[in-house]
Amino acid sequence: MCTAATYYAKDHYFGRNLDLEFSYHEEITIVPRNYPFIFRKCEGINHHYAMIGTAFVVEGYPLFYDAVNDKGLGIAGLNFPGNAAYKEEVPNADNVAPFEFIPWILSRCADVDEAKTLISRMNPVNISFSPELPLTPLHWMIADKKRTIVVEPLKDGIRVYDDPVGVMTNNPTFDQQMFHLSNYMHLSNKPVTNTFAKGLEITEYSRGMGAMGMPGDLSSASRFVKAAFTCMNSVSGNSEEESVSQFFHILGSVEQQRGCVCLGEGKYEITVYSSCCNMDRGIYYYRTYENSQITAVDMHKEATDGEALIRYPMIKEQQIRYQN
Amino acid sequence: MCTAATYYAKDHYFGRNLDLEFSYHEEITIVPRNYPFIFRKCEGINHHYAMIGTAFVVEGYPLFYDAVNDKGLGIAGLNFPGNAAYKEEVPNADNVAPFEFIPWILSRCADVDEAKTLISRMNPVNISFSPELPLTPLHWMIADKKRTIVVEPLKDGIRVYDDPVGVMTNNPTFDQQMFHLSNYMHLSNKPVTNTFAKGLEITEYSRGMGAMGMPGDLSSASRFVKAAFTCMNSVSGNSEEESVSQFFHILGSVEQQRGCVCLGEGKYEITVYSSCCNMDRGIYYYRTYENSQITAVDMHKEATDGEALIRYPMIKEQQIRYQN
Amino acid sequence: MCTAATYYAKDHYFGRNLDLEFSYHEEITIVPRNYPFIFRKCEGINHHYAMIGTAFVVEGYPLFYDAVNDKGLGIAGLNFPGNAAYKEEVPNADNVAPFEFIPWILSRCADVDEAKTLISRMNPVNISFSPELPLTPLHWMIADKKRTIVVEPLKDGIRVYDDPVGVMTNNPTFDQQMFHLSNYMHLSNKPVTNTFAKGLEITEYSRGMGAMGMPGDLSSASRFVKAAFTCMNSVSGNSEEESVSQFFHILGSVEQQRGCVCLGEGKYEITVYSSCCNMDRGIYYYRTYENSQITAVDMHKEATDGEALIRYPMIKEQQIRYQN
Amino acid sequence: MCTAATYYAKDHYFGRNLDLEFSYHEEITIVPRNYPFIFRKCEGINHHYAMIGTAFVVEGYPLFYDAVNDKGLGIAGLNFPGNAAYKEEVPNADNVAPFEFIPWILSRCADVDEAKTLISRMNPVNISFSPELPLTPLHWMIADKKRTIVVEPLKDGIRVYDDPVGVMTNNPTFDQQMFHLSNYMHLSNKPVTNTFAKGLEITEYSRGMGAMGMPGDLSSASRFVKAAFTCMNSVSGNSEEESVSQFFHILGSVEQQRGCVCLGEGKYEITVYSSCCNMDRGIYYYRTYENSQITAVDMHKEATDGEALIRYPMIKEQQIRYQN
Repeated sequence: MCTAATYYAKDHYFGRNLDLEFSYHEEITIVPRNYPFIFRKCEGINHHYAMIGTAFVVEGYPLFYDAVNDKGLGIAGLNFPGNAAYKEEVPNADNVAPFEFIPWILSRCADVDEAKTLISRMNPVNISFSPELPLTPLHWMIADKKRTIVVEPLKDGIRVYDDPVGVMTNNPTFDQQMFHLSNYMHLSNKPVTNTFAKGLEITEYSRGMGAMGMPGDLSSASRFVKAAFTCMNSVSGNSEEESVSQFFHILGSVEQQRGCVCLGEGKYEITVYSSCCNMDRGIYYYRTYENSQITAVDMHKEATDGEALIRYPMIKEQQIRYQN
Repeated sequence: MCTAATYYAKDHYFGRNLDLEFSYHEEITIVPRNYPFIFRKCEGINHHYAMIGTAFVVEGYPLFYDAVNDKGLGIAGLNFPGNAAYKEEVPNADNVAPFEFIPWILSRCADVDEAKTLISRMNPVNISFSPELPLTPLHWMIADKKRTIVVEPLKDGIRVYDDPVGVMTNNPTFDQQMFHLSNYMHLSNKPVTNTFAKGLEITEYSRGMGAMGMPGDLSSASRFVKAAFTCMNSVSGNSEEESVSQFFHILGSVEQQRGCVCLGEGKYEITVYSSCCNMDRGIYYYRTYENSQITAVDMHKEATDGEALIRYPMIKEQQIRYQN
Repeated sequence: MCTAATYYAKDHYFGRNLDLEFSYHEEITIVPRNYPFIFRKCEGINHHYAMIGTAFVVEGYPLFYDAVNDKGLGIAGLNFPGNAAYKEEVPNADNVAPFEFIPWILSRCADVDEAKTLISRMNPVNISFSPELPLTPLHWMIADKKRTIVVEPLKDGIRVYDDPVGVMTNNPTFDQQMFHLSNYMHLSNKPVTNTFAKGLEITEYSRGMGAMGMPGDLSSASRFVKAAFTCMNSVSGNSEEESVSQFFHILGSVEQQRGCVCLGEGKYEITVYSSCCNMDRGIYYYRTYENSQITAVDMHKEATDGEALIRYPMIKEQQIRYQN
Repeated sequence: MCTAATYYAKDHYFGRNLDLEFSYHEEITIVPRNYPFIFRKCEGINHHYAMIGTAFVVEGYPLFYDAVNDKGLGIAGLNFPGNAAYKEEVPNADNVAPFEFIPWILSRCADVDEAKTLISRMNPVNISFSPELPLTPLHWMIADKKRTIVVEPLKDGIRVYDDPVGVMTNNPTFDQQMFHLSNYMHLSNKPVTNTFAKGLEITEYSRGMGAMGMPGDLSSASRFVKAAFTCMNSVSGNSEEESVSQFFHILGSVEQQRGCVCLGEGKYEITVYSSCCNMDRGIYYYRTYENSQITAVDMHKEATDGEALIRYPMIKEQQIRYQN
């Protein structure tokens, strides 16, 4: 499944792991300010914020997995099976299809507050992009440079939560994920102290024992705890390189290795790609399962005033540098 | 602390994470066949197998962390505090200092069997390299293309264990690590089945739940379980790139992120470097905490018949590739 | 805190642990059919079902902790801090105070369906019994001979859940407790199978390893899992003695030993008493922390047509039987 | 399998759970001082310390499960499958059969030190009591009023360990059990503190969360941790009744409920009996799975100078006290 994260060092970073057993033809996609965005049940928008992210582009339309706009607002859509509920079209509401959610928000909103306002008027309508690309159950993490929220389209309506840990995975619902953290509040990045019993001499035999009890499997609940711990305790230098490096280490802590999640019929879920976008500077970094080098696309090196999508296929082949 | 691993795809791979809060000046070091190896209490050797690995070279002597020779035998030395016991010099034995162990074996042994024979005559003598580089408590994982063993210098003498999982971390002793695996034998990379109680309907809410109970903290005992699971369930393509990629994903599953293991005084243990050596072809791949690109040094591109060490400083700066 | 359970052997059993750091003057209390029940905001009832249970009797009023009526309907009230929400008085609803809930239901309802109907009209009103006995945050487990439900007065209103495990503890809310069971669905009372990895020989070193991962601390979430497992896997003979014995063993699996939950200032939470009522026969069995013998009061040995409470103080002193 | 424990309040207590899927005809058995003890390969003893305990008496010989002598020395024998190793007869050693171990020590030793001396001369000889009662793999916990030791007959010889926790279960070996406690050293009977991350507000939702991570399954390794925690944190009044009560609560924390450990073919391991002997006063208390009342036999109410065994069959039927 997937993990999204934010990390605030000197600059602000937003990204995610995409965990799947297959991959479409993902591309780093820049939507310039004058690309005419069409929406199925809402009015289109011809002039808007520029955005950069990973998308599967179909018939000229960017189906974004995650993206950040030039105001520094970022959104990632993650799988939410069994919980996501989309509705019939409703009058007097913005009927936004799940695949339209990211451009709908990023084209108009400069920050989380504006996004919340837009979401309050929204009806997540049960329209798929095409028969070949049916509805996917999704929820979204949205962050600006100050805060992070989680948006979940549930049967009872859309719920919006503040996300104080800056992390989102998949099931269960976000309030339960947060509650579940209570069961791990005794974990620590410090050396462990013996509180088992008075008068008993037992000693630490390894560094890192302060976090004993941390879950290490790859389920969405366990990844949430592990990613939250790693993210909230992260320490890095302030340079762009060090911050980006630390961000990929955070995502690496919950990466899915091929073989560990077997889906039957020789299929394995893996971390197809990991992304990290500098929200301040519009630089989108990524790695793929087979290419551990960081590759980058800089939105501001492009003419963001254009009308046509700018697309860079992901470089998925291992880039080994030989020193001799 | 550290993790060592082996992975057998089409070729055979051997490597490790070095986890520390600091780093010396590590270099990829090739010892050619005619480099004159001196040993403190044993006779030196002037003509021997060539080897490649990561070493801290002091006064022209390679202090190896891990290395592989041109016969495909690999050794990694890992921290073993509180358990490693070195002895006074003993007559009629090979008195080998801990820092000499890797060259002592790799210079003469073509496989694990030969290594075991040499070790049976060995006394791990309590001699440090220099006053500035005191004795480090160590144990060793040794692998050839067929099998892996663990060698532990204990108070009662040297113990040699077969290592069926191809993984080693730090404390406790290897037999205890293996025993401890029993507590996780119910973990699986398959979807989970409900065996809690008859007649109770509870359903899987996420992929990956078959491994619930997997430890995820960074202690040596927990890393052993997690690395063993990832390593033994690993699946990859057979190409060199895919195999090497998978190896780094195995090591990545137990990587130490900066901030997660706090040692006080602003010090944090991190995975300083990860290495992966193709034992068949003598190519040494590595990554560092700040440089996620794979860098490689190929032993056979050098004149391995020489007498002088061939040294490549690790490239530790992030190598970002810009697509635009 | 507390644990409630049901167990269906030949007869049907209902009971609970009361876990507290102190105890009032609990008494086994029988309310005969013509005891005039007064309710603060609802009309009283003079003729009703008889009931038996543990109560703290104040000013002639039975403040029940748990009770069963002569139709075989049982209710236990358990602590629900931070979640229970009581409301202002509301017109056109049955305004029932928390301390009135058990008699309100048991006096009129013969089974769970009738209880649900009554609850649907109810407003849990924020009235305490007296200034000395302030409002306690509560939720309730209700069972008849066929099924069990949980009733939770939340901020958003009363929620009623089917309880397929027949167990209730305290926080979190019942739906979360049930969801949390998913994290333990791989536990089993059978011997464990090695699914860790192919080709790895690890063996079971003890009976009972199929349930490794079972939580054993005394928090409400952990007691829920442990009690659910024990209850749902319970096996016993059909005699009254064997069934009652098994019931106390179920409750014993989540008992609180003095010293294990320290509240500061020399206070410790313990299982003050455990109860088990045969719902078919109206016999109320109990044990206390210091008296492990089972003591019983039989409702039908009394004149249940009377008007006055019939009260038996709990026998709390250890009853040791000497064989010589 | 089984759990043994010691508890030091005003007096000193020693006892155990016997966990099995069947039971022999256990009896509380007193061996008076002049009962002629015969040993297969060692000289018999006609005058010795008196002892009381649970035994299966066959052909007039007490096969003790656990016993305490009139000097206050206690021994319990527990199952140790796969680890216990008995040897061929050896000259110049005390060749003691496993079934003779308890009487061999208790007949002659007044305290743990004397027991250790005797054990140092002992060879655990592979002689069974009879063809119908074959060798059982055993290890022993021995305690006096000051200290506890564990004695394990291993392949490499007998090992004697100090036991600072006063608890023993079954596999693995005692040194591993003690080491394994390190993985739980962060557990506490105090309320939990949030150390997960700075700036994260998560709150305790239940009492008892300080011990989250405590294992709750019934394997020998998990019972060791749970019993050690309960035992070492136990608090009780000083009266005989309160101390004995607390001791049974300690054993109750690792009791085996019928149904939780399924052995196949309709067989379930249960706690057949729990015992608690006051080592100072020679009173032997017990409970059985079906009889939760404490029953007692007082050694000093008997003529302990006799020659014949004094035997009290266990009262196994539930003793319910009716208050009406």
